[in-house]
Amino acid sequence: MATDVAPAQRALGVHRVLEPPGVLPQAARRLDPDPAIGPDEVRLAVQRLNLDAASFRQLRESCGGNGAAVRAAVLGIVAARGKMQNPVTGSGGMLIGTVDAVGPESPLGLRVGQRVATLVSLTLTPLALTDGLAGWDGRTEQVPAEGTAILFARSIAAVLPDDLPDPVSLAVLDVCGAPAATARVVRRTAARSVAVLGAAGKSGCLSLAAARAAGATDLTGLVRDEPEAAALTAAGLADRVVVADATDPLAVAAAVGAPAEVTVVCVDAPGAEHGAVLATAAGGTVVFFSMATSFPAAALGAEGMAADVTMLIGNGYTPGHAALALDLYRSTPGVRALIDPRVAA
Amino acid sequence: MATDVAPAQRALGVHRVLEPPGVLPQAARRLDPDPAIGPDEVRLAVQRLNLDAASFRQLRESCGGNGAAVRAAVLGIVAARGKMQNPVTGSGGMLIGTVDAVGPESPLGLRVGQRVATLVSLTLTPLALTDGLAGWDGRTEQVPAEGTAILFARSIAAVLPDDLPDPVSLAVLDVCGAPAATARVVRRTAARSVAVLGAAGKSGCLSLAAARAAGATDLTGLVRDEPEAAALTAAGLADRVVVADATDPLAVAAAVGAPAEVTVVCVDAPGAEHGAVLATAAGGTVVFFSMATSFPAAALGAEGMAADVTMLIGNGYTPGHAALALDLYRSTPGVRALIDPRVAA
Repeated sequence: MATDVAPAQRALGVHRVLEPPGVLPQAARRLDPDPAIGPDEVRLAVQRLNLDAASFRQLRESCGGNGAAVRAAVLGIVAARGKMQNPVTGSGGMLIGTVDAVGPESPLGLRVGQRVATLVSLTLTPLALTDGLAGWDGRTEQVPAEGTAILFARSIAAVLPDDLPDPVSLAVLDVCGAPAATARVVRRTAARSVAVLGAAGKSGCLSLAAARAAGATDLTGLVRDEPEAAALTAAGLADRVVVADATDPLAVAAAVGAPAEVTVVCVDAPGAEHGAVLATAAGGTVVFFSMATSFPAAALGAEGMAADVTMLIGNGYTPGHAALALDLYRSTPGVRALIDPRVAA
Repeated sequence: MATDVAPAQRALGVHRVLEPPGVLPQAARRLDPDPAIGPDEVRLAVQRLNLDAASFRQLRESCGGNGAAVRAAVLGIVAARGKMQNPVTGSGGMLIGTVDAVGPESPLGLRVGQRVATLVSLTLTPLALTDGLAGWDGRTEQVPAEGTAILFARSIAAVLPDDLPDPVSLAVLDVCGAPAATARVVRRTAARSVAVLGAAGKSGCLSLAAARAAGATDLTGLVRDEPEAAALTAAGLADRVVVADATDPLAVAAAVGAPAEVTVVCVDAPGAEHGAVLATAAGGTVVFFSMATSFPAAALGAEGMAADVTMLIGNGYTPGHAALALDLYRSTPGVRALIDPRVAA
């Protein structure tokens, strides 16, 4: 492990990068997953990996649905790269584990024995597996696992709450950036009207609840079909539920009607940029949370429509995001009504 | 031309879309460039196309540098699509021309005889060429041309100023979204420290000048090499000029030093996202103007570094952007010193 790395770079994990030298851990081909920690690091005893959906789908398809082959592929990636980053999709996931050792200079505030979920991607988390994934059949995104993972000084982990089942906490923490950023934008802009595209999903329903809690009074939830509309209506999170294909800009504009001051894009499909711009009032803000968002489509689309809107790249990190999302889940029956069936499935 | 289109959709040019029906003009395979205008449209007599740099490079390379072949390719695209949108790069450019006819319901405020530049992309501008591009040798991005172009109710065009040469106006208007958005962010956040990555280019130097005019007092300009550093230093637009590879995050962070409240990315190369995030203070704002920006790289990078930064997709349109950029050019000797040699080249 490199020892001549400046503290600010160590905090980002640069000392764990083996190849190519000098890049950040996420861009690295290979990390050093040595369980021996530095003074500002934390070691976790891994219990479960939660593979990114896009990554798991790619692995399953490339292995023809053969679970043993998927397991071998994951083991191979982690052995080769020192992290679980699918080389095809580039994506990772998150993990849960128990705090195993805390360096004396770690600023994360964790204690040995705490159960935590990592809120930074597996794509930058040094990981060593020791059980050959013997407890996993290769057929689920959730992967029981034993081994060690390393947190840097600038990593983030959330202590798992005692009052919620792990799968629920994982599901909520997976998208906790969206409600936190939505709440911040609504507060900063004093917006009253908010439209959420993809409103019946995990990040969508949490964003509706966050917007309401932050003071918005006119909430529109856009969903893709009637079953989702019925579920969202029953959940009572939106003042108005509308149905449209989020990738059809004119249909979105027609469904939303009077443009919203803030539009939140939680649709996990490409092509929602122009509809979101059209759904937003002049001077308003669009927050894009979908990883399928195209930067040029958003930038050129807004310009081409002479749309004076502020467009935000949804940052997965906002201080306090984990606690806010878990609290919204606890306090909002409508959020639970939408998320619980997804967890059970 | 479709006649049963609602006014809000007409304003976006939906009635000019031939294939596939129902999409916005930018997404269309083919537009109707009929010179007969509707009541809310404006017709321009085209004088010159300014092809997008990426598009021109692709055409030149695919034609092996043969100018006649490039000319034929452009003519073929415009004939087939009713607009100049390179099917490989997806990009277009802009044009200048003279206002030829104004529909009675056009809200653009243009008068017949005015010389204008279009500030919406050629990718959504109905275009018909009538001169076979006889005056162009296929070897320059600027294309002398005759024909007609159509502006919709929500298009944007800037009247060309009498006091500046056309090539200068085009060069400035091509990037006028960047200084306007920079000024707005600096004012809204009351930022004092601003870092511009790619500070010696057109959008970079205008953004520095805009930040200064908006009240920033601590300006850092990051450039790629010593010749650019010398030019930017001589221009006097930044309080500090630093040299680093903008695609090397750690080098950028080291060069910028104390993080800025606002970072503006004008680097026209992929991979500048993480350096920009590291160059920005907690609670600060990054404005991405490069079309090479990767949405996932920005979103996952900020999350992975636990960086509490607001990230904006640079919108090419802000009200008043054309006038602001031209005024900055006129009033700032340092801006002229950096832009004039590029125009001459």
